[in-house]
Amino acid sequence: MNFLEERILKDGQVKPGNVLKVDSFLNHQMDISLMEEIGREFKRRFGHKEITKVLTIEASGIGIACFVAKEFGVPMVFAKKSKSVNLEGEMLVAEVESFTHKNRNQVIVAKKFLSPEDKVLIIDDFLANGCALQGLISITESAGATVQGLGIAIEKGFQMGGGVLRNLGYHLESLAIVESMNDETGEILFREQK
Amino acid sequence: MNFLEERILKDGQVKPGNVLKVDSFLNHQMDISLMEEIGREFKRRFGHKEITKVLTIEASGIGIACFVAKEFGVPMVFAKKSKSVNLEGEMLVAEVESFTHKNRNQVIVAKKFLSPEDKVLIIDDFLANGCALQGLISITESAGATVQGLGIAIEKGFQMGGGVLRNLGYHLESLAIVESMNDETGEILFREQK
Repeated sequence: MNFLEERILKDGQVKPGNVLKVDSFLNHQMDISLMEEIGREFKRRFGHKEITKVLTIEASGIGIACFVAKEFGVPMVFAKKSKSVNLEGEMLVAEVESFTHKNRNQVIVAKKFLSPEDKVLIIDDFLANGCALQGLISITESAGATVQGLGIAIEKGFQMGGGVLRNLGYHLESLAIVESMNDETGEILFREQK
Repeated sequence: MNFLEERILKDGQVKPGNVLKVDSFLNHQMDISLMEEIGREFKRRFGHKEITKVLTIEASGIGIACFVAKEFGVPMVFAKKSKSVNLEGEMLVAEVESFTHKNRNQVIVAKKFLSPEDKVLIIDDFLANGCALQGLISITESAGATVQGLGIAIEKGFQMGGGVLRNLGYHLESLAIVESMNDETGEILFREQK
């Protein structure tokens, strides 16, 4: 069991509706030492690849992506979910559906921040149905840039997002893959990974 | 002139409507080395105070707040702008108006992450009218916690937010205070600070 799986067992909470609450260390309150360790672990897993940019989506992906970008010594870009008055110029836009919020969002990145030369590592905190990730992939490829890998903190292995992306040939690394959860017993089972 | 003022002059862009675009290094694409330098600078300015928690608001404050929290060795909490299905339990809520988006948002923090013992350093990327910051202060004080300081990357000195908070006695440190901007010439003038 790795450091993130151990932390999930220690501080994560299983709630009805297949909700895994990790808000005390990952996506509301953030344990910065853990973020740094996640950054180092993704460097270990993707360090053999050329990476020029780390891409994530607001809001809870930003913390992890900062520390991954620090490890690789490259800029981090976070996609926005709606057009702010400060976004202008040419935009890359994808439409995604949020598993958590049960609504549709636009995923937007200013075109100038992704070029055909970019080798992109996409980072997010959660992967369930994978809609946000699909939006980030779509945006990267529409810029002519290359998706070098997908790095996820926690994947819900019982939902389809991860499987689809692996079938499509993407190099997807999830630090913890939850195979099943039980909100009555609180039990969490992880997929065994090499 | 400090490192952030120099960077704003180099890469910032003045747009009509008193908009200062810093999206190439601060709030869309992030220069991680700059974020680290901002973290160290806030440690220098607030390091004489006891800090147990860094508080910010999604989304663009998160990157800076991560590196400030790292310097202080404390957790970072980011307030959310709307209630997600993953937020449950007792919530601290304040209502704020966004200068950028021209709408009203709720600022929400789970009550369990701010206790009366907490000594809080509030961090954000921008301060204009200060509504977001007022929401974060209101939430901190409603938890019975102490606001030890307010750390801002860029303050628009020609708007009222900073003046109001200094009048109220808060220890506010802004790394760059824009006194005036001209979207025709691109000129940016900073307030002289000790």
